[in-house]
Amino acid sequence: MERRYLVLTQGQTHPTPAKMAATLLRYKPEWVVALLDAENAGRTADELMNAGKGVPIVGSINEALPLRPTALVIGITPPGGRLPDGWRSVILEAIRSGMDVISGLHSFLNDDNEFVQAAQKHNVNLTDLRKPPENISVNQCRARLTNTLRIHTVGSDCNCGKKVTAIELDRALRETGKKSVFIATGQSGILISGRGIALDRVISDFVAGAAERLVLENKEYDYLCIEGQGSITHPLYSGVTLSMLHGFMPQCLILCHQPDRKILRGSPDIPVPDINKVIDLYEKIAEPVYKTKVIGIALNLMSYSDKEAAELTARTEAETGLPATDVLRFGPEKLIKAVFAFESKIKQGHKVVEN
Amino acid sequence: MERRYLVLTQGQTHPTPAKMAATLLRYKPEWVVALLDAENAGRTADELMNAGKGVPIVGSINEALPLRPTALVIGITPPGGRLPDGWRSVILEAIRSGMDVISGLHSFLNDDNEFVQAAQKHNVNLTDLRKPPENISVNQCRARLTNTLRIHTVGSDCNCGKKVTAIELDRALRETGKKSVFIATGQSGILISGRGIALDRVISDFVAGAAERLVLENKEYDYLCIEGQGSITHPLYSGVTLSMLHGFMPQCLILCHQPDRKILRGSPDIPVPDINKVIDLYEKIAEPVYKTKVIGIALNLMSYSDKEAAELTARTEAETGLPATDVLRFGPEKLIKAVFAFESKIKQGHKVVEN
Repeated sequence: MERRYLVLTQGQTHPTPAKMAATLLRYKPEWVVALLDAENAGRTADELMNAGKGVPIVGSINEALPLRPTALVIGITPPGGRLPDGWRSVILEAIRSGMDVISGLHSFLNDDNEFVQAAQKHNVNLTDLRKPPENISVNQCRARLTNTLRIHTVGSDCNCGKKVTAIELDRALRETGKKSVFIATGQSGILISGRGIALDRVISDFVAGAAERLVLENKEYDYLCIEGQGSITHPLYSGVTLSMLHGFMPQCLILCHQPDRKILRGSPDIPVPDINKVIDLYEKIAEPVYKTKVIGIALNLMSYSDKEAAELTARTEAETGLPATDVLRFGPEKLIKAVFAFESKIKQGHKVVEN
Repeated sequence: MERRYLVLTQGQTHPTPAKMAATLLRYKPEWVVALLDAENAGRTADELMNAGKGVPIVGSINEALPLRPTALVIGITPPGGRLPDGWRSVILEAIRSGMDVISGLHSFLNDDNEFVQAAQKHNVNLTDLRKPPENISVNQCRARLTNTLRIHTVGSDCNCGKKVTAIELDRALRETGKKSVFIATGQSGILISGRGIALDRVISDFVAGAAERLVLENKEYDYLCIEGQGSITHPLYSGVTLSMLHGFMPQCLILCHQPDRKILRGSPDIPVPDINKVIDLYEKIAEPVYKTKVIGIALNLMSYSDKEAAELTARTEAETGLPATDVLRFGPEKLIKAVFAFESKIKQGHKVVEN
């Protein structure tokens, strides 16, 4: 069926709260017929989102109907992932208008009796992207037994480019003819790639096992570009990050970093550590389980001018001794080169895999 | 109601797989009327469990009935926490005999239609100790704002004495007249203390928030002796461990360590790191969120003679420069002394709390 999404961003049409909307507009703009945001109705998506040229912002479900939307997508993923007050009536109206509803929230549409009954009555589907599969087992450390090169994007903070970097690396690898796949670990990545597991929604004992499962399910690929979550020092999400590191058992990491971020996003006042300290922590905490190495830096420089961005990139390379780039502004080629250099080092017997 | 527990340990009457049974026998022997294990029927608990003097092992529900058990307790907590095959019929028989059933498994009795229907028919209760409370929020870093001294037991491995150490520290603190409480974070601790949250069963995004909640709910105490889970380098459970470290925001840690453990329990072949490396990792990974310090070592020396235990304790102290003890064999006094010394250092303005 044709995908014609109306994306709910109500009052929050901005790339940060509306991560899911931003991902759709960047990677699947052809799926989006409009954003729904009464506060910004009449404008277009690209004015507010840096993506989605020409996509209109409408003020109501009614106003969207001439665009024949097939589904309402909940376009935001707030910390804690609960349904914002006041969105209930919009969702019910969409259902009554015959639209499917797609959500990445922690609270599931399919656990909500009112939504379920309305969906049955109007014969539409409710999709919870964050719903984990059944029967995930605990980690058995089998990721390391596959013949995959596991490139894992990690961050100095949440929401600083881990998904975009993994997608761009995968795209570049495939363009050079490599057998690569993007591994989605969050709701936005799952929506655009059609697969993956939202690891932050998995019961904590099973997150590393779910990560292992994603590797085993993709072991026919040579390169896995694995989307990271949170950050190893983030007081809200560090556990998810560490479970992933020990479950995916990546040979190499790309550190995603936004230099103008001073306080960890969503925390009251916890500072973003120095970049070299973050690199050191990721490598040290991974090592007892499976040795890994940060091989490059993906900078998120969206708030800087081209000149500043070039300067910051050079400064980061000098500070870390690693190749750095902004994958959206300068392309991912430097990081791809670092991946190939790392790979040939491993193959020459400088084995990084010691366990 | 009087507690008269029949504890199911079927074929696994040994302190390691039967952690819940071992905890009950050590701390609430008066609640246990018998163990149920056909393979070891006729023996007594203390022969196999190092605890539970005189508690009989029976071979069937029928055989237990003269002891008037009020509840069947599932006495094991296997990795992954699923119901072992063959126990279903035993549970149903207990229900039909009018007994409540208490479980610490990941798979909930109350999610199982057959158990729920049988329990309704026979008017008995099913208790899932691992069931988390509703509406846990993400961590807001409020643990540090309480006037509690948070003493967190952590481990170089899972199942090496974190719960026992926290219980013994709490008991010793209360015996010196301090306002202290044991904070249970796993099913066995919850069973004997009557409260707590099984953090490994919480959705990964909310584990740190659940830890914070446990602190806020106990902020009227001066000392919180907080049970740890897993280990920071354990490939199955490290994420739970790290979420707890960043959620509880403990000022000090007691490292629990079993010197004869070479491979992390439940992992295929991942080594237990050197003890000083483990200490360093805990302190380093906590520091960017909330500075903490390992102030003592709790050794699990149950497999050693008294002489060997004394030697190992002295050697550990020399290696780490920290006070060490086996809390069950030698008592927790050395660690209590370390807690008080640490506390007076903080109070003198050598602030460890820097955030």
